[in-house]
Amino acid sequence: MAFSATDHAMMARALRLAERGAYTTKPNPMVGCVLAHADEVVGEGWHQRAGEPHAEVFALQAAGDRARGATAYVSLEPCAHTGKTGPCADALIAAGVARVVAAMRDPFPQVDGAGFDRLRAAGIAVESGLMETQARAINRGFLSRIERGRPWLRVKLATSLDGRSALANGESKWISGEASRQDVQKWRARAGAIVTGAGTVLADDPSLTVRLGDGTAASQGDFVAPLRVVLDPGLATVARGRVREGDAPTLYIHAPDAKPPRGISAQLAAVTVREGRFDLDAVLRLLAERGVNEIQLEAGATLAGAFLGAGLVDEVLLYVAPVLLGERARPMFDGLGIDTMAQKLKMAIVESRYIGSDVRLLLRPETE
Amino acid sequence: MAFSATDHAMMARALRLAERGAYTTKPNPMVGCVLAHADEVVGEGWHQRAGEPHAEVFALQAAGDRARGATAYVSLEPCAHTGKTGPCADALIAAGVARVVAAMRDPFPQVDGAGFDRLRAAGIAVESGLMETQARAINRGFLSRIERGRPWLRVKLATSLDGRSALANGESKWISGEASRQDVQKWRARAGAIVTGAGTVLADDPSLTVRLGDGTAASQGDFVAPLRVVLDPGLATVARGRVREGDAPTLYIHAPDAKPPRGISAQLAAVTVREGRFDLDAVLRLLAERGVNEIQLEAGATLAGAFLGAGLVDEVLLYVAPVLLGERARPMFDGLGIDTMAQKLKMAIVESRYIGSDVRLLLRPETE
Repeated sequence: MAFSATDHAMMARALRLAERGAYTTKPNPMVGCVLAHADEVVGEGWHQRAGEPHAEVFALQAAGDRARGATAYVSLEPCAHTGKTGPCADALIAAGVARVVAAMRDPFPQVDGAGFDRLRAAGIAVESGLMETQARAINRGFLSRIERGRPWLRVKLATSLDGRSALANGESKWISGEASRQDVQKWRARAGAIVTGAGTVLADDPSLTVRLGDGTAASQGDFVAPLRVVLDPGLATVARGRVREGDAPTLYIHAPDAKPPRGISAQLAAVTVREGRFDLDAVLRLLAERGVNEIQLEAGATLAGAFLGAGLVDEVLLYVAPVLLGERARPMFDGLGIDTMAQKLKMAIVESRYIGSDVRLLLRPETE
Repeated sequence: MAFSATDHAMMARALRLAERGAYTTKPNPMVGCVLAHADEVVGEGWHQRAGEPHAEVFALQAAGDRARGATAYVSLEPCAHTGKTGPCADALIAAGVARVVAAMRDPFPQVDGAGFDRLRAAGIAVESGLMETQARAINRGFLSRIERGRPWLRVKLATSLDGRSALANGESKWISGEASRQDVQKWRARAGAIVTGAGTVLADDPSLTVRLGDGTAASQGDFVAPLRVVLDPGLATVARGRVREGDAPTLYIHAPDAKPPRGISAQLAAVTVREGRFDLDAVLRLLAERGVNEIQLEAGATLAGAFLGAGLVDEVLLYVAPVLLGERARPMFDGLGIDTMAQKLKMAIVESRYIGSDVRLLLRPETE
């Protein structure tokens, strides 16, 4: 299928619109829609919040009568089912749209091609696959949850040049600079859950809240605060810590035989523990079932190493501070158990950029 | 002193000319010279090889009669002494140059302002300090040797993302990629000495030769091969290894009481050892006395850590490969003995760039 330069430009615009919902649409996917007659945009919109109208509805409202005969560019297949709002496919048909170009099919079981079918049945020209790679990247969390049954897992780490995430005594404040710590907030804001371990709660007492403070959605009413999750087999930390303060919800995942202390009200969920370690697959399935698209893991070397060693890490967000912490400090990932070069774990550098005086690397484990 | 845009452009040209000598002028400084009438260049040259004519001589030859009344832009103060060639200041005077703009004074004791004095005494307008920072950077090795009595010390390291330079068994081939290994050759080529330790000779058997293979000077007759230096207290490795092969000279630095095995001919020099460790200051003084401007240290974590801990490292050339080697692998620097955040060693990132699939960082320790 050959798409024109105009098609590409319009889809790029739809993708940028989609991203405006990064902090607010969870657990729904981000979607953008542009209605155009050739080069002229007559309406646009994006999905802003789960339960509220989809991108197509906003774009159709903006276009009014001019939607008739237009091409609709959508970053995701229009829905065909009646959820909290009516089917977008029907709305596009009713408005007299002539052509629909989608970046990708929506794998959500209640859509999954049914939106395209309904449009085609109404005589509308439908094409899909334009800028699909970019569309998948934006919604990698949603797609992971729907297609793999587990959230997309991002490990956030701040390390020294010599790859150390904390001193031998556990101290890790502040390895990275202020600019990096502010940058982390944006990545937290897109996550559906921020996950940590009991060890980090005891050592650092993090609040795991999102502090953007720049007037964006995260500081406004629309923002959907990520679930804070503590992996705490024995519920040793459930009574304490800044992770229980503030408005964002907190979930403790514990071993089936753990007993919460009396008088503590907290969200709890039990997951199987084998040889002292959580079944991490089960942890991820549980969070997917709760609608978590993207996880940001902010934990110590042991938990980060366990997820990595289990092959469950999708990307590593690494802030490298230009300092050395020396050979006694703690490793970036613990428990990898590598003894030969053949066992080394390969990553691809997706992006490298300066953040203040640090370098931020976005990495993806390479599967062979 | 206010320099014009033309002055800046001409000096930038002189600095680029100077750098052409990076592989060949050792132990002399790199120097470039541009002769110009306003915007018109009438002659240019650079110092190509110790013992051969200086930059000014080549530029004056190229300009011929047009040198009269010209401005001479030189990246370093013209010499006033008769070394292997006559004084450049006299040549500039004889050619009738009207004005001399230098990037910096030459701290070499036989020059050190005497070149400027001689020019001024002949009625030539002399200005210095234009782009001095850049000029100092080019000749940081020469300046270190003259001003501090020790070479500029660059530590070259190839590490994993988690800051490991070798596996627990000592294996370090190949952490970084082919492009990085080729890039290292250019940095070796500018060094006056490549220094390693006996441990690395035993573990990796490196040749420490320069292999550019691209038709540049290093593969031609002009190239001055860096001295290969092995720090080997007991001369345990003097009888073996690729480090003794090829045309480049090799020097073994040993403890005063070490006895070379019989029948071995090798360059030897004794340096004091205390508690099993070389006096590293003395090692550097010894190499400076031999005319080494820049050292490239390519050693293991122990020796690299010893130089760093002693405050003797001037820059770190770090190739970070996108792999993880895990918590059992060897540290980047050993023996730093850091226990608190206040003790962390701060570095500044001078440059960050991709080299193949790796990231190359050039770092400078920050002195407070």
